[in-house]
Amino acid sequence: MASVLCVGIATLDYVYAVPELPSQGTKYRATDLEVVGGGIAANAAVAVARLGGKASLLTRLGDDVTGQAIRAGLAADAVDLALSRAIGGCRSPVSAIMVDQAGERMIISYSDPAMPTEPDWLPQALSAETGAVLGDTRWEEGSLRLFRKARAAGIPAVLDGDRKPSDPGLLAAATHVAFSEVGLAEQTGLSDPRDALLSLGSGKAWLAVTAGERGVWMIDKGEVSHSPAFAVDVVDTLGAGDVWHGAFALALAEHQSERQAVRFASAAAAIKCTRFGGRKGAPTRTEVEQFLRERT
Amino acid sequence: MASVLCVGIATLDYVYAVPELPSQGTKYRATDLEVVGGGIAANAAVAVARLGGKASLLTRLGDDVTGQAIRAGLAADAVDLALSRAIGGCRSPVSAIMVDQAGERMIISYSDPAMPTEPDWLPQALSAETGAVLGDTRWEEGSLRLFRKARAAGIPAVLDGDRKPSDPGLLAAATHVAFSEVGLAEQTGLSDPRDALLSLGSGKAWLAVTAGERGVWMIDKGEVSHSPAFAVDVVDTLGAGDVWHGAFALALAEHQSERQAVRFASAAAAIKCTRFGGRKGAPTRTEVEQFLRERT
Repeated sequence: MASVLCVGIATLDYVYAVPELPSQGTKYRATDLEVVGGGIAANAAVAVARLGGKASLLTRLGDDVTGQAIRAGLAADAVDLALSRAIGGCRSPVSAIMVDQAGERMIISYSDPAMPTEPDWLPQALSAETGAVLGDTRWEEGSLRLFRKARAAGIPAVLDGDRKPSDPGLLAAATHVAFSEVGLAEQTGLSDPRDALLSLGSGKAWLAVTAGERGVWMIDKGEVSHSPAFAVDVVDTLGAGDVWHGAFALALAEHQSERQAVRFASAAAAIKCTRFGGRKGAPTRTEVEQFLRERT
Repeated sequence: MASVLCVGIATLDYVYAVPELPSQGTKYRATDLEVVGGGIAANAAVAVARLGGKASLLTRLGDDVTGQAIRAGLAADAVDLALSRAIGGCRSPVSAIMVDQAGERMIISYSDPAMPTEPDWLPQALSAETGAVLGDTRWEEGSLRLFRKARAAGIPAVLDGDRKPSDPGLLAAATHVAFSEVGLAEQTGLSDPRDALLSLGSGKAWLAVTAGERGVWMIDKGEVSHSPAFAVDVVDTLGAGDVWHGAFALALAEHQSERQAVRFASAAAAIKCTRFGGRKGAPTRTEVEQFLRERT
């Protein structure tokens, strides 16, 4: 069983169903509420576990009931939290997410600025079984530290570039960077995915951008190629990007090629989009393999 | 010590500080978060207790950690919760409140529609010490039941008309109705406070509308009069209307005249507006009395 260590944010999401997204300084009534675990790295870890990998999460929580709810949700999905910590006096990350009837989303997220940035409780070496590290931009010091250990161990270090990292060193440390469209545009100032990837040139990392239903562009040794998305009826995109990155890192940990890994990740994310409830819709291995057989 | 029974909603508010109010289907980062108890009836009960009254709250919570947090906050403010209930299988009311740098607010609130509406656990009679009942429009069946008991006992039944009640019987049952401007406009279709009050005619209830810094209009036996607001430096209006209603009901329970009660309530609400943190800013009796001496 391949093992992926995910490092970054875990949140508790309060998902409010609203007739339309709020836009004014007034009162709105929600028609439904779901309180579910979320967060980029945490969602990716859940995806890894569902897909049959061993998922470990390194995240910083507060010592509050929110943190307890986050832990309980992750434990129920078989995510190993041995490396995560509850920080005394800090509040756990929490988000308000408003979803309208068309599935459009507004996310307001809070992370405690008093949360210590140094992962000084981290063991000196990765466990021998770790097959890949996946990091997000919500805890750059943590991702950077783990990416360096991954490189030293000769395993993939995958960055989820959902936005431009503050520390340029993070891009340099990763072996694989998969941006969101927003993240790549922030990083390069260019809106065309192909131009943007080319402008980042031939660094040391394999680079890609995930563009939802428009598929994935990737660049390797100066060559840009494209992998189309699977056409599905989209119900809920919340967490789909996180599922993509978790599946991609797991495939690399299993020694799949990048091209195979992109296809595997795109299938996992496509299935997730057909189901409501954020990461609750992350698919199992069997579901992805059957989907890929049907679509080939 | 005069006693006020408040009936209606108690919430847990997640108050997000944001550079500007969100308006689009995208991601926003909050700079600060406060998790505080809120809700119309609950805030009014806290105001009553701070002002030296005995405050009881009759509210429906879920059997969840949110409900525990709501209870703990109210108990810390000496609000008696003996008549409140945790309903099995239901979720407690919760709100996301975004506050921008200018103090403008956006509120998204959720109440579990599965919450039973009948207050069948209610004792057959009000306790002998109850001096007034205050009800909100968030639990109309509860307010209606208590208003009838108040009328039968010959004590004031005060409705916080922050919006138009679904059941017209609620207006008929109350002895005193203090609308918000929005509530009165919804009720009458008229935007001018004076015209709107006159259009409701000479019902059985004393009627008023609170209009923030523009003061309070009230009608009694067909005569409209106005009470100006106290000029203060406004920092935070969250919960100010609820504090007004709690103070007003307490003053009536103490046998103050309506005119005195409006002045007392307006002073309490004015002080609250000078302090950040929602109902945390509700003043003590000493503070209100000193404020009234200074402003006379």
